Amino acid sequence: MKDIKKVVLAYSGGLDTSVIAKWLEDTYECEVVTFTADLGQGEEVEPARAKAESLGIKEIYIEDLREEFVRDFVFPMFRANTVYEGEYLLGTSIARPLISKRLIEIANETGADAISHGATGKGNDQVRFELGAYALKPGVQVIAPWREWDLNSREKLLAYCDQHGIEVERKKGKSPYSMDANLLHISYEGGILENPWAEAEEDMWRWTVSPEQAPDEATYLDLTYEKGDIVAINGESMSPATVLEYLNKVGGANGVGRLDIVENRYVGMKSRGCYETPGGSIMLKAHRAIESITLDREVAHLKDELMPRYAKLIYNGYWWSPEREMLQKMIDESQQHVNGIVRVKLYKGNIIVVGRQSDDTLFDEAVATFEEDAGAYNQGDAEGFIKLNALRLRIAADKGRDLG
Amino acid sequence: MKDIKKVVLAYSGGLDTSVIAKWLEDTYECEVVTFTADLGQGEEVEPARAKAESLGIKEIYIEDLREEFVRDFVFPMFRANTVYEGEYLLGTSIARPLISKRLIEIANETGADAISHGATGKGNDQVRFELGAYALKPGVQVIAPWREWDLNSREKLLAYCDQHGIEVERKKGKSPYSMDANLLHISYEGGILENPWAEAEEDMWRWTVSPEQAPDEATYLDLTYEKGDIVAINGESMSPATVLEYLNKVGGANGVGRLDIVENRYVGMKSRGCYETPGGSIMLKAHRAIESITLDREVAHLKDELMPRYAKLIYNGYWWSPEREMLQKMIDESQQHVNGIVRVKLYKGNIIVVGRQSDDTLFDEAVATFEEDAGAYNQGDAEGFIKLNALRLRIAADKGRDLG
Amino acid sequence: MKDIKKVVLAYSGGLDTSVIAKWLEDTYECEVVTFTADLGQGEEVEPARAKAESLGIKEIYIEDLREEFVRDFVFPMFRANTVYEGEYLLGTSIARPLISKRLIEIANETGADAISHGATGKGNDQVRFELGAYALKPGVQVIAPWREWDLNSREKLLAYCDQHGIEVERKKGKSPYSMDANLLHISYEGGILENPWAEAEEDMWRWTVSPEQAPDEATYLDLTYEKGDIVAINGESMSPATVLEYLNKVGGANGVGRLDIVENRYVGMKSRGCYETPGGSIMLKAHRAIESITLDREVAHLKDELMPRYAKLIYNGYWWSPEREMLQKMIDESQQHVNGIVRVKLYKGNIIVVGRQSDDTLFDEAVATFEEDAGAYNQGDAEGFIKLNALRLRIAADKGRDLG
Amino acid sequence: MKDIKKVVLAYSGGLDTSVIAKWLEDTYECEVVTFTADLGQGEEVEPARAKAESLGIKEIYIEDLREEFVRDFVFPMFRANTVYEGEYLLGTSIARPLISKRLIEIANETGADAISHGATGKGNDQVRFELGAYALKPGVQVIAPWREWDLNSREKLLAYCDQHGIEVERKKGKSPYSMDANLLHISYEGGILENPWAEAEEDMWRWTVSPEQAPDEATYLDLTYEKGDIVAINGESMSPATVLEYLNKVGGANGVGRLDIVENRYVGMKSRGCYETPGGSIMLKAHRAIESITLDREVAHLKDELMPRYAKLIYNGYWWSPEREMLQKMIDESQQHVNGIVRVKLYKGNIIVVGRQSDDTLFDEAVATFEEDAGAYNQGDAEGFIKLNALRLRIAADKGRDLG
Repeated sequence: MKDIKKVVLAYSGGLDTSVIAKWLEDTYECEVVTFTADLGQGEEVEPARAKAESLGIKEIYIEDLREEFVRDFVFPMFRANTVYEGEYLLGTSIARPLISKRLIEIANETGADAISHGATGKGNDQVRFELGAYALKPGVQVIAPWREWDLNSREKLLAYCDQHGIEVERKKGKSPYSMDANLLHISYEGGILENPWAEAEEDMWRWTVSPEQAPDEATYLDLTYEKGDIVAINGESMSPATVLEYLNKVGGANGVGRLDIVENRYVGMKSRGCYETPGGSIMLKAHRAIESITLDREVAHLKDELMPRYAKLIYNGYWWSPEREMLQKMIDESQQHVNGIVRVKLYKGNIIVVGRQSDDTLFDEAVATFEEDAGAYNQGDAEGFIKLNALRLRIAADKGRDLG
Repeated sequence: MKDIKKVVLAYSGGLDTSVIAKWLEDTYECEVVTFTADLGQGEEVEPARAKAESLGIKEIYIEDLREEFVRDFVFPMFRANTVYEGEYLLGTSIARPLISKRLIEIANETGADAISHGATGKGNDQVRFELGAYALKPGVQVIAPWREWDLNSREKLLAYCDQHGIEVERKKGKSPYSMDANLLHISYEGGILENPWAEAEEDMWRWTVSPEQAPDEATYLDLTYEKGDIVAINGESMSPATVLEYLNKVGGANGVGRLDIVENRYVGMKSRGCYETPGGSIMLKAHRAIESITLDREVAHLKDELMPRYAKLIYNGYWWSPEREMLQKMIDESQQHVNGIVRVKLYKGNIIVVGRQSDDTLFDEAVATFEEDAGAYNQGDAEGFIKLNALRLRIAADKGRDLG
Repeated sequence: MKDIKKVVLAYSGGLDTSVIAKWLEDTYECEVVTFTADLGQGEEVEPARAKAESLGIKEIYIEDLREEFVRDFVFPMFRANTVYEGEYLLGTSIARPLISKRLIEIANETGADAISHGATGKGNDQVRFELGAYALKPGVQVIAPWREWDLNSREKLLAYCDQHGIEVERKKGKSPYSMDANLLHISYEGGILENPWAEAEEDMWRWTVSPEQAPDEATYLDLTYEKGDIVAINGESMSPATVLEYLNKVGGANGVGRLDIVENRYVGMKSRGCYETPGGSIMLKAHRAIESITLDREVAHLKDELMPRYAKLIYNGYWWSPEREMLQKMIDESQQHVNGIVRVKLYKGNIIVVGRQSDDTLFDEAVATFEEDAGAYNQGDAEGFIKLNALRLRIAADKGRDLG
Repeated sequence: MKDIKKVVLAYSGGLDTSVIAKWLEDTYECEVVTFTADLGQGEEVEPARAKAESLGIKEIYIEDLREEFVRDFVFPMFRANTVYEGEYLLGTSIARPLISKRLIEIANETGADAISHGATGKGNDQVRFELGAYALKPGVQVIAPWREWDLNSREKLLAYCDQHGIEVERKKGKSPYSMDANLLHISYEGGILENPWAEAEEDMWRWTVSPEQAPDEATYLDLTYEKGDIVAINGESMSPATVLEYLNKVGGANGVGRLDIVENRYVGMKSRGCYETPGGSIMLKAHRAIESITLDREVAHLKDELMPRYAKLIYNGYWWSPEREMLQKMIDESQQHVNGIVRVKLYKGNIIVVGRQSDDTLFDEAVATFEEDAGAYNQGDAEGFIKLNALRLRIAADKGRDLG
């Protein structure tokens, strides 16, 4: 048994982490500090204070991290058009590094020697929390109760509550899904989703209406970009978190951003997940559009080739690593000229880019036109271009290689 | 002036290539062989025979290449989830290698020493045609009239027709767009699209209804995969071309597959293009879904990282190259177990995967479950996994590196 | 404690694995099968039989795997010009998958439910053995005594021997280094090498003379390649293992193949290692040379870009994985035309390529020459080639981007 | 014929560029400005002034660019361990961007509208000069006489000199090789090297003695690194150019740095080249060594995977491009902690790293040791690490996939 004096717990105020708070005190005979963050999950965080107090917690941290979350984590990630396995927008993954950072900062402030979290031993989140913690405070102790205790069912948890006088709200109609939410997305796992052939039920989805239920009128948005980030919508300047809240609302109302996939976890198994990422889905599409007129071709291709690796780093929990920093430097460098406006149309689940403009455009109508171009482009150049690009192939074929 | 005896011309039967046929005879005093292919562009090819005859052509090739096109080009490309610059499904690019191949084969059959095509000197297609031709017959002469002649406007072309007795159908309501079609897609360039801020007009689109006009009822499809290719729809076996025709029809009716982008051409400029790829869009989404349960994680990630490069090869015209062959070997190898059924729902522009199943699934419910897993997974393993993955970070932080 | 009935042990006949054999019987009360392989480590394997018998082992496997090792593991790896972290030729890494394979095959033959090995818990070898074992027999039990027992010093091991009547040859002058050898290399770790600033002592090296001690006369070798593998030396056909033995001898005599590096282990720490790989060093250099005239440029570049990843897979122990298989398919495909002869000169530590020739050469003197080339290459083509390759840069600069 | 008023010529003072100067005046009836740079090629540049004057040139630029060359081009390139096609250290390639930059700056200063160079239409240098020029001044005219004129033999050049009164030094014993030199290397092409089977003659090499002729005593050097660059040798601080000169001298005396390869040119053919890069060869080896103890593993691997692409950019002439800038940002970022000392031993062609130390080392003896580590590493962690890394393989094998 580790010798722990004080532990900072990522505390939601819910049943599981309340049990954990008690269990930590009992098991390790240590002080517990709770940390509850508003990352835009859509539930009040303030009630966590009373619950923590009722558990006898002395040091209680409750913080609104929404702006920091979007500005320093979500936006930098979207600069890379980041998608994991072709589909997943990393809504859960990108929130973990910020929580790790605050857990460690609070540990340093309160003199705690350990942190703890409520993630299970089967998932990615434990890895993300702990890699971050170790990178930021290498000597920290980590307590992951789900890997240690034997309270591995809801019944045992409730029994533990009864035994230790932990008050439980017995919600009726508890969701059959394991869910996670923050400003970027809400996710669903478990229940019938564990059968990849089963279609998700309509009443599972919480943030978006279905395309069927969305309005018959399209909504148009003008998104203004500066250095790869959205800074205004329909001409109105907004903070990062406000941008994302706005897009979530409008996107959700138009039925955009649902996703249903089977993904590969870092710990080795495949798992089914459903996600609602209305604002993020719009941002991804629009960012590609603004890049399409402002990024150099080779820069864009290099970004595309490195993106899966960058996405994997974030998915696997390596936000706080030198390799992510290194890639970020390159990505951010590429965004210096990614300025301008993208017009998107939202309609019943569709995100349609209908226009893009920029003072930094590299689109050159004079060169691109099918009409007379007044010498902007010399068609004769193409022959030499093709001939030399073909030279190695011609030599090979000449020497008898079969390229067909 | 090159000394040409006989040239095989990629002949559509339209105005431009009819003028080219005549111009080749006049300019090079050579015989012209015409080659017209049905690649599913949706127009009859047989009328090209009469037109060619009216131009005095003796050797006329008219061929239905639809099955070969889909089986040997489209399907192999989709095994890689191929997308250029994050958006474009390469509908034009993938048709060119087959045309090059037949041009060269016909040149060999007819004893021709040259080939010719009607692609402009500003675009990608000239590159694709010619790289293919040089790879397959290194000594072939290539005549690209648009790079040579001065008939660089519609007026001059029509004057040439008058002068040389070429019959012209003066269609009313000629499209203002430059278009290209085959079984995989139809494309639009030019006209108002040369302004990237201008929204495409609704009446430009030909293959799909708008999401607004699509039916209020969703359509469900069950797509059966064998080794990464669709072999049956709703349980009915179909040939490759039939699969794509079917998906185009159903997709188009449900408003799926429209795309409006600015892309980077190989010859160096950016250009705006609009595309309708209904069947291809469904195939991309569904293929990712069947792979999600049948591909190993690392194989999937390697494919994802190499995909942009493979896409670039095809876009740039290097289908007939040893590097494409080499990548294809790897891609095809990865598809041995990509078997099973994907269920998709089409609704007003949306392609929604709702289920996937396979006898070759790697999804292991026993391991993945949030419920009791009877020892299929040992949660304690995660601690060592995390600790050793963190080791390099812990050492670095211990030695004073700032990873935050 | 796992319930084990029979375990197959990778047995060298030395002190450590003899103790392990006994410890396994005692601890798990199970039968032990020993497996000893001749991979070209340069020590007799037959004596292991008597030692195993003296320990009471009933099922004893002793095998000469040298040809299989070189043919199916070393040669395929060298087709990729595989080097880990720019320097290391993977001599230890590449031997592990074959041992794993035989351990599992013997387990299947003898009805064993477990395997065991003598690798420590700090190194890469445990990972390589066990990943291979799990991939080939997913339900197998693995016993890694160094991670389990408390015999963590030489003294405790000797005490265990005394206690259990295990005969120990008390060699005088035991090496202070941890060593490993097979036909590809011999490695040294530990001792003074744990200080990266300390120069390795001359008497550590066993397979090569120092460059200083090597002959004053150079040795020339003609190496004949077929599909990327050496099949003859100086015109004489040889089997794979014979090729490597020959090159080790000649290379060692000429002082080539020493390496002294700090490498990054998969388990997370840096470690110092010294290696002698005389034959392998020659093979790497010569293989690049034969590829230089027979491989297409883009194929060569693709191989170069993927090589570090392939090397990492082997270093980390993923030989038996679908991603390694997939890469191997691509690598092997690239070697179809890698035929010909390379002449190398060995002199006091230097491996110098002095000539290469091939019936499959892509080197075209007519095109390459600085002399009159009779029209094989049209210099005028270069202008168009450069102009279009520069187009995106010219447009960007025209629009005010600073590329300087 | 282009309308040119004034052209800046990259002028060596030799026969070819003297003819070019005259030919430009005659052909384009334009003023000629000459630019001659000392990049460490080992010949005086001042005599070029008199020669230019004798040709009637009014504006003559002669500059010593050695420090800028090494500081801003060679050193940044070596931070990436840059090698083209596994062998070539890019000695010619890396000098071209600096010449392009100065040509354009001088064009801007003197009001010239064109630049010119003496590179042939078959090589890489024309591409490098011109891509740089177009990137830095998109409207510049480029005149490449070798692609335009018919003076395509030495005889015709000499006849032109006679005809135009250009004084020619008829050197006896003119080298049969085409050579290029700067502080980083000297190169040889042409002559008997056009046969890849022919061994280079000993008297071709100019900068290095042969290993055979090198001293019998080894030379040791201590190289001090700061942020990836060498700043001192044997404890003595030196400027970048001085470092490289010093290493060239010592390296050359010890017979290190010769290279004989067949490489793939950007314009499409293979070509044989011999190179002497004594200082660069030492720098490459030593830089890897200092990185081996100061770079994070994943950073190092990412650098290794991107290096071939970075090398190709430089080889192909894209130094002045946004994609090179972007990669450079990442590479430079990685070098923040690449500080310390590497000890190398030079002996008869061998460059042997014998020690490395750093205040920024990530080598942790406590963790790495084979001896008792006092809990720095928990061997038990390895089991979980391996188990979860194997999980996807175990599941696949369990479901019947054959991974053998």
